[in-house]
Amino acid sequence: MSAYVSKSKAELQSLYEQRLSSHRGFIAAGKKLDMSRGKPSKAQLDLSQGMLTRECPHIARDGLDCRNYGQMDGLPEMKELFGALLNIPGSQIVISGNSSLQMMFDCIALGMTHGYSGCEPWMKQDKIKFLCPVPGYDRHFTIIEYFGAEMIPVRLNGDGPDMDTVRRLAESDAQIKGIWCVPRYSNPDGLVYSDEVVRAFAALKPAAPDFRIMWDDAYFVHNFKGERAGLLNIFDACRETGSEDMPLMFASFSKVSFPGGAVSMAAASPRNIEAIKKRIFSQTIGPDKLNQLRHVNFFKDAQGVLAHMKKQAQIVRPHFDLVLNTLDARLGDKGIGRWSRPEGGYFISFYALEGCAKRIAALCLETGLVITPAGATYPYGKDPYDSNIRIAPTFPSLEELAAAVDTFINAVELASIEKLLK
Amino acid sequence: MSAYVSKSKAELQSLYEQRLSSHRGFIAAGKKLDMSRGKPSKAQLDLSQGMLTRECPHIARDGLDCRNYGQMDGLPEMKELFGALLNIPGSQIVISGNSSLQMMFDCIALGMTHGYSGCEPWMKQDKIKFLCPVPGYDRHFTIIEYFGAEMIPVRLNGDGPDMDTVRRLAESDAQIKGIWCVPRYSNPDGLVYSDEVVRAFAALKPAAPDFRIMWDDAYFVHNFKGERAGLLNIFDACRETGSEDMPLMFASFSKVSFPGGAVSMAAASPRNIEAIKKRIFSQTIGPDKLNQLRHVNFFKDAQGVLAHMKKQAQIVRPHFDLVLNTLDARLGDKGIGRWSRPEGGYFISFYALEGCAKRIAALCLETGLVITPAGATYPYGKDPYDSNIRIAPTFPSLEELAAAVDTFINAVELASIEKLLK
Repeated sequence: MSAYVSKSKAELQSLYEQRLSSHRGFIAAGKKLDMSRGKPSKAQLDLSQGMLTRECPHIARDGLDCRNYGQMDGLPEMKELFGALLNIPGSQIVISGNSSLQMMFDCIALGMTHGYSGCEPWMKQDKIKFLCPVPGYDRHFTIIEYFGAEMIPVRLNGDGPDMDTVRRLAESDAQIKGIWCVPRYSNPDGLVYSDEVVRAFAALKPAAPDFRIMWDDAYFVHNFKGERAGLLNIFDACRETGSEDMPLMFASFSKVSFPGGAVSMAAASPRNIEAIKKRIFSQTIGPDKLNQLRHVNFFKDAQGVLAHMKKQAQIVRPHFDLVLNTLDARLGDKGIGRWSRPEGGYFISFYALEGCAKRIAALCLETGLVITPAGATYPYGKDPYDSNIRIAPTFPSLEELAAAVDTFINAVELASIEKLLK
Repeated sequence: MSAYVSKSKAELQSLYEQRLSSHRGFIAAGKKLDMSRGKPSKAQLDLSQGMLTRECPHIARDGLDCRNYGQMDGLPEMKELFGALLNIPGSQIVISGNSSLQMMFDCIALGMTHGYSGCEPWMKQDKIKFLCPVPGYDRHFTIIEYFGAEMIPVRLNGDGPDMDTVRRLAESDAQIKGIWCVPRYSNPDGLVYSDEVVRAFAALKPAAPDFRIMWDDAYFVHNFKGERAGLLNIFDACRETGSEDMPLMFASFSKVSFPGGAVSMAAASPRNIEAIKKRIFSQTIGPDKLNQLRHVNFFKDAQGVLAHMKKQAQIVRPHFDLVLNTLDARLGDKGIGRWSRPEGGYFISFYALEGCAKRIAALCLETGLVITPAGATYPYGKDPYDSNIRIAPTFPSLEELAAAVDTFINAVELASIEKLLK
């Protein structure tokens, strides 16, 4: 094998016929396959089954009957469990229900209706913009789009967002109110922000005093290969630079226990926590405390969570290995794609030849294989290079996954040869 | 005994000394008592204990694994359970987490940031106002205060808000965007809206096309005496008048199962449901579906819920009887207070002589008895008559409750005689 770009037209034409024939075979086979969403597999979920079979306690550590009202910002023991895993004091943490995304939405909504740092609510300001490192998480973009703010893509380097660009934009334009970050095993590239990048965030002097870093540590314990990646504590870094009010941090147990029954949290500076609590206290008489207790009872402590995630890793890793090994073997030297090599998180980021991603997704769909819509990893669903495809290997069985990767790689080849033949 | 107003100064002075002596006795006894919040008692919560001890199923009726992502607006079987109890099709219902208050907050927030019926978002409009039937629920008022809208109190009659006032205000002022209603066993008066009142709501032609009726059916199955009160279906009534988009309905299982681990719902017209779903889909990847399944599994169907609430009624009713019987016996003919006689809900509404409520609450606090702060049942905490006090009899034991009522009645007498002696 050699790089396709150095092949003659005749060679490419012959390859094209072979791949097209395979493609027709996949269509005829009529399999329904799905590599589109970052969902845990049944085997992963089964690891937490004890939470559903064991009796749920209802008396909290301090004697509170969790079946009743009270403790609007969450149980201290749940705050401490998150805090121990993230190295943050419980006093800087609030706990909510099943969805950390909802907490992020709410923090953006808080900016829209009430504003941060004593500034006018964003809705009363002329226009607001958000920086979006790309490729990124579609649901972050959906929140910004819902509120009608403008999104500005910023390139991701191997160790985080391109901080020269972030600095230049944030420090010159007061309409820019924040940035989305998935700092550990980023969605979809699986990269981890370096200490330098975290320090560069802390050193930012945004033109907008109400600029907020949306720090979504979604995969904080979700390493499946090697040790859990370290991540510089952004609150510590920001305290040193006097910008502690910039970061808002989020995490959840959705992919630790159950996406359909977990616990989420937000962490922030004392000043931001006060604003968030004020909103919570206007909003609810309290989250589901029984589910918090159910979690604390099942996982016990930080070590318990990490041990549980080691078991998940043993299930998850073969899925990633299968995809990565197959990509290496079949596309390694063809020069028609590159891909990330994550050690945690839920995705492999595939970069096709420019202008090929949509075509690849369409070819996959023809065969019955659903992949994340091309473009989804960019604001407004528009990948300017039409190149990035997010692969989610965890949910299908290894057998289904092997079939899906087979189909996917054939689609990549077909679309790439089509482009090279043009 | 006779009405205090017809007593001589000397008689009153002598009574005052007696009551003051009792009051000092209560202070010396140093009991800690609480009649302040509408919380279920331990015995009520114990009725749902099976939800915590039994294994929680995880496969929904349609085969969905509820442990995983999906079904953002709730399980069909949970929608149907609410729907059967409220006579609303499941398609008009969305399910959320533990707190229906959060859904109400979110519907107000939706109005603020996105607007209703194609109108400008409320935050972009000049000024907005909300009608608040009084006395009412403090947490409703907190939401409006949080968003900085003006609250206009409207008098409650025995069968609902004074609809002449509601009509006059809502139909003449386009800044008035809605009204809060607890139509069944209202908080705190325990009254039920008559069919005429519901029809008058449906017939409203508000000046604001984006006027919304916040219909909080919080106590929809919470009768403790006699049959469950009927309530005309506001959606049916509004469909007849072509104003189906006006009402937004809310309910929850907080006081059916556990305030610390329940399921809530919103119901609305197809057009409003679409707007609400759009917000939900921007906001979360889904509520806690396992808890929905836990509820459906425990209660089975509407009959199961009603049977469960009959058991709760047997626990709750003696608490109300104790307070009402004691008030009747001790204050019945003294002319220094009147009170509601609810057959459902969580509160007794006590009306002291004008100008006495704050003094009564302060006297209670001196003895260690916490009651809902006087004024809490009015917007901004300001009862113009300083008369209404909300009594919450469910949470204390009957023994504690007897002691609390004793203390409370003595405080009422003391404050009333003080006033009459002035």
